Amino acid sequence: MTAIVESAALQTWTADVFVRLGLHQEDATVVAQTLVEADLRGVGSHGVQRMTTYARGLRGGTIVAQPQISIVQDSGWAAVLDGGGGMGQLAAQRGMQLALERAAERGHGAVAVRNSGHCGAMAYYAMQAAQRRSIGLAVTNAGINMMPTGGSQKLVGNNPLAYAIPTGRDAPIVLDMATSVVAGGKLDVARLRGEPIPLGWALDGAGRPTTDPVAARQGALLPLGGPKGYGLAVVLDVLCGVLSGGRFGNGLGGPGSSHFFEALQIEAFTPYDDFLARIGELVDQLHACPPAEGASGVVLPGEPEHRLRAQRLRDGLPLEDTLIGELDDLAASLGAPRLEKKPPA
Amino acid sequence: MTAIVESAALQTWTADVFVRLGLHQEDATVVAQTLVEADLRGVGSHGVQRMTTYARGLRGGTIVAQPQISIVQDSGWAAVLDGGGGMGQLAAQRGMQLALERAAERGHGAVAVRNSGHCGAMAYYAMQAAQRRSIGLAVTNAGINMMPTGGSQKLVGNNPLAYAIPTGRDAPIVLDMATSVVAGGKLDVARLRGEPIPLGWALDGAGRPTTDPVAARQGALLPLGGPKGYGLAVVLDVLCGVLSGGRFGNGLGGPGSSHFFEALQIEAFTPYDDFLARIGELVDQLHACPPAEGASGVVLPGEPEHRLRAQRLRDGLPLEDTLIGELDDLAASLGAPRLEKKPPA
Repeated sequence: MTAIVESAALQTWTADVFVRLGLHQEDATVVAQTLVEADLRGVGSHGVQRMTTYARGLRGGTIVAQPQISIVQDSGWAAVLDGGGGMGQLAAQRGMQLALERAAERGHGAVAVRNSGHCGAMAYYAMQAAQRRSIGLAVTNAGINMMPTGGSQKLVGNNPLAYAIPTGRDAPIVLDMATSVVAGGKLDVARLRGEPIPLGWALDGAGRPTTDPVAARQGALLPLGGPKGYGLAVVLDVLCGVLSGGRFGNGLGGPGSSHFFEALQIEAFTPYDDFLARIGELVDQLHACPPAEGASGVVLPGEPEHRLRAQRLRDGLPLEDTLIGELDDLAASLGAPRLEKKPPA
Repeated sequence: MTAIVESAALQTWTADVFVRLGLHQEDATVVAQTLVEADLRGVGSHGVQRMTTYARGLRGGTIVAQPQISIVQDSGWAAVLDGGGGMGQLAAQRGMQLALERAAERGHGAVAVRNSGHCGAMAYYAMQAAQRRSIGLAVTNAGINMMPTGGSQKLVGNNPLAYAIPTGRDAPIVLDMATSVVAGGKLDVARLRGEPIPLGWALDGAGRPTTDPVAARQGALLPLGGPKGYGLAVVLDVLCGVLSGGRFGNGLGGPGSSHFFEALQIEAFTPYDDFLARIGELVDQLHACPPAEGASGVVLPGEPEHRLRAQRLRDGLPLEDTLIGELDDLAASLGAPRLEKKPPA
């Protein structure tokens, strides 16, 4: 069972909760926006569902509520930020904004971030570049959840990357993907439904292939395409953790993570209108592709999420009753009002 | 059956063949080096095996033997090159060199290349950045060989990317991967051996899953991880073809392709020695991972190729007799000497 919540109401409510958890108002607004945007785009695993975990971190002191975010090294086009151990969204947003400022001055900017935390869906950051005539790249390392190819111990995360590219059409191209076959959240979905998972998604705690989502959660995710996913996860760990001087490799067993953001202005390569004409042609080619049997047609990466967002902005967001219960409990523990549900139509 | 050929002799012989096909001596040397390096690293699909195809293109006029490579747009840190319709290796090498020159001056360089051709293994270009204290990225678009997710017509290539990262150890980290489940060359290997291919590698000409490597070659490769591989292939096509104003999308049905090269100097983010200390720690962690059952242990991306190269530099390269026959025929048609084989030990 689900209830419907207006996204604007959800965002205000979420920001209020984070203020009560000790964040500055403007920081709480940033965090709330990243979470609600993920829910709008149908990426519930990175939406308000994360709030109880974040609240535990803020209350337990593993997340600093009012972090000092500082520039550690500055080379003009490139910089390294220290996130001060705060909510990852705050350091990530500063990182992407700094990369975009430098790109506005110089055509390109890149920022590595250390001493940050879980920062939600990477698409949120990359998409800001696409709004400024730039190609955006946003990367983070994740907690350790995969075994390297040939190994029997978890040592790499399924580190995700997001690319965003303007198209001049309704939806930018947005690719946001983890380097595992599936995200960990899919195991939880199967568990809640009491369904097995396909072989090839994960290993159990003893490193054996499994179809049991519970055993898989105690085991390891499998890297996308075996050595390809493992290799890409290592490269992204270097861009984030090794470049920034933050956590990487088995250091990610502890709290805190590292990110990498880059913005490339398209005008540095080609007149923007020419770029839009060409990419529009690519979008049209793909849209015109005859559908495969049983499929409804071809979409560009990020297009379904874009459509869902428009629909959910209009009609509201469906949230599971169990989730709403958790959120209301959290609010009650902070003396905050309950989340306002939309009356049934 | 194979014969052994000294890599130095193979390189001299290969360059001589390309001179006879109309290339300038220094260009022939560049092409020969990229091919022999691929063979040394065990990537035979991008080695001298390609020579007969290149020769057909050069003789048929679809590849310009002495191309004019020119700068189309120059923004300092970024540039676009036109490859003049020549061998892709020449434009790609100029592109990576230009990106590295700009990175030497400014810390960062990126070059998109259009009107180029098949340029061999991307690792060759990315690795040049790793030799200059930089993280290198090399991307190309490929001929159309995959269907977009949900579509029934081939419209994207299994566009590969290569990252190279210095480690301060013997081997740099080198990830060179196509965005399909397997490279097309693996279908040919199965066909030559008369073996079926696993389901999940490819579709037949009617878009149905197949285990027949011959039917698969007339069909389509499957993208790595479905929508992830499709999405990544689209993004890489944008970086190469759309950014440069070269061929992209279904334009890749014709000859010619586009590339993208980037170099990020590590010192722009962190002192180089600190970076080496950290990445050495990551390498050590991965090497120390207990092996999975039946596996010999964990290697970093590019490490097996690095070891094989050292062994083949010392002991010579094994080439299949059928390939040697093809190469000797090519040489004979150009009045060139036969390839010199190493006498059996």
